[in-house]
Amino acid sequence: MNQPIDEFSLISNFFKELTSQQDVAVGIGDDAAIINNKTDHQIAIATDTLVASVHFPGDASAEQIATRALCVNLSDMAAMGATPKWFTLSLSMPQELVSTEWLQGFSQGLATVADQYQVSLVGGDTTAGPLTISITVVGEIPIGQALCRNGAKPNDIIYVSGTLGDGAAALHQLTESTLKKNDRLIKRFYQPQPQIDLGISLRDFASACIDISDGLIADLGHLCKASEVTALINSQALPIHDDIKQAFSEQSINWALTGGDDYQLCFTVPSNQQVEFEQWADANNFDVNAIGNMIPLDHNQDYLKIDNQTVSITAGGYSHFK
Amino acid sequence: MNQPIDEFSLISNFFKELTSQQDVAVGIGDDAAIINNKTDHQIAIATDTLVASVHFPGDASAEQIATRALCVNLSDMAAMGATPKWFTLSLSMPQELVSTEWLQGFSQGLATVADQYQVSLVGGDTTAGPLTISITVVGEIPIGQALCRNGAKPNDIIYVSGTLGDGAAALHQLTESTLKKNDRLIKRFYQPQPQIDLGISLRDFASACIDISDGLIADLGHLCKASEVTALINSQALPIHDDIKQAFSEQSINWALTGGDDYQLCFTVPSNQQVEFEQWADANNFDVNAIGNMIPLDHNQDYLKIDNQTVSITAGGYSHFK
Repeated sequence: MNQPIDEFSLISNFFKELTSQQDVAVGIGDDAAIINNKTDHQIAIATDTLVASVHFPGDASAEQIATRALCVNLSDMAAMGATPKWFTLSLSMPQELVSTEWLQGFSQGLATVADQYQVSLVGGDTTAGPLTISITVVGEIPIGQALCRNGAKPNDIIYVSGTLGDGAAALHQLTESTLKKNDRLIKRFYQPQPQIDLGISLRDFASACIDISDGLIADLGHLCKASEVTALINSQALPIHDDIKQAFSEQSINWALTGGDDYQLCFTVPSNQQVEFEQWADANNFDVNAIGNMIPLDHNQDYLKIDNQTVSITAGGYSHFK
Repeated sequence: MNQPIDEFSLISNFFKELTSQQDVAVGIGDDAAIINNKTDHQIAIATDTLVASVHFPGDASAEQIATRALCVNLSDMAAMGATPKWFTLSLSMPQELVSTEWLQGFSQGLATVADQYQVSLVGGDTTAGPLTISITVVGEIPIGQALCRNGAKPNDIIYVSGTLGDGAAALHQLTESTLKKNDRLIKRFYQPQPQIDLGISLRDFASACIDISDGLIADLGHLCKASEVTALINSQALPIHDDIKQAFSEQSINWALTGGDDYQLCFTVPSNQQVEFEQWADANNFDVNAIGNMIPLDHNQDYLKIDNQTVSITAGGYSHFK
């Protein structure tokens, strides 16, 4: 039988400072948080759970776990074009981890990301159990401007932000102990950059949007299915970092297509807005690349074609460290 | 290495029907849910996690686990006087549980409670891992009417709803396999009744409110600490069900004071509203009982006195089934 975790003092001691008071009428320390509403906005809600040895290696530091957990959740807000505002944390942890050092590291990791993206922790729940971090992020979006998955139309141009395959390459490094660690990749894994600013700007341009958590094929497949269109992808256009092309020339295309954990945005822009969008992205230093275009869904319901070959959208999925 | 869980079809197959469209602009199936705002309301957010063998016995049925998880979370809304509206679910489950039967049972349990309290599932996340259920409930409350913990004043009357000690008695039955099971208690454990209607009505009466999840002493202690007052409790006034008084005469008072899992409300009403409140409760069939009153906090910071004896507020805590 474990010793009970004293939830009240855990939350007060380690997480209370993460609640800033902007729009928060009642923060941590009551039965629920109370937050103020904007009248011309809708509310966006997304939730995501990370389990030790499934979503991060068992030897990850407390700070790494925390930054990854919050970044991954914020990415869902980016994909909707929402401005993240508040989040709740459910932290289930084994008794042997309950130390001031671990909790300070975890809290510090959360604070780093929360500060960067200006989100406030408004609710916390800690309990004894296997290490599992569940975060729910709540954001705001002007009424009717959410970037949904189902808005893509034939002829729309398909874009991705940043580079693809970094998540898979990082995973490969983390699981192959003999490989020299590449700091850029380790940071991409533990602190992927949710594309919040891009998502907000895309309200003006994008017809549909999704974040790439399970791999381009899987996630773009979801978008195509929701929009009832077929994506034609040019594999030569996939943005892959030079490091990865050089070090892993054989795997890199496959990682870019099916590796998860990139947390970049994949989105569509109507072709008549292509020029304006690309000029805007260039002027504002957003790293986006066109990788293909949409066509009407064929009678076989092939949602994805890469270099004119049909592919299954069931590829991709979870990463496991066990 | 586990087989991956196909999250997309899990959510679609088993949980999608739980999203009703009331105020939900975008439900399950996108990166985040989008919900509509009321202009004259604030938003209440609370989160709670249940871990197998910590918060429920390992042999609990899928339906029992689901009803308990949602009821426990709704109880936090009741304690704030909020109207629960939407919830997200993070379900981490071991591969061996992933069966149609288990998932249908779990979904049915959620649906039973969601229908009863008119809340919609708006976000879901399922992953491989130890059985852990984390729910975040979002509700609404008219601006400025939340029932906080810190509003109690000297002379306020202290009330509790329902009966106390049922949760502890149920736990005792669940862990002592030789005892004859009492159906009322088993239901109180797996489907505690969040006091939503009472909480909403208490906006007109209560100066402070908390739900009793960790036991009266622990939770009333939190309320007293937040309000900086001392509670004088009369142990003879504690409402205890006759079944429990008779079957467990020795333990019953202790269970009522320190046993958790009751999910009743403990709240304070200014003494000049006592008569009006009790008449209202009587007329509306709310089962509430005065158990004591508040006095100014003494210089020793004794937050709780039971029959004039000082008690520590650290009593109570988690239940473990391991």
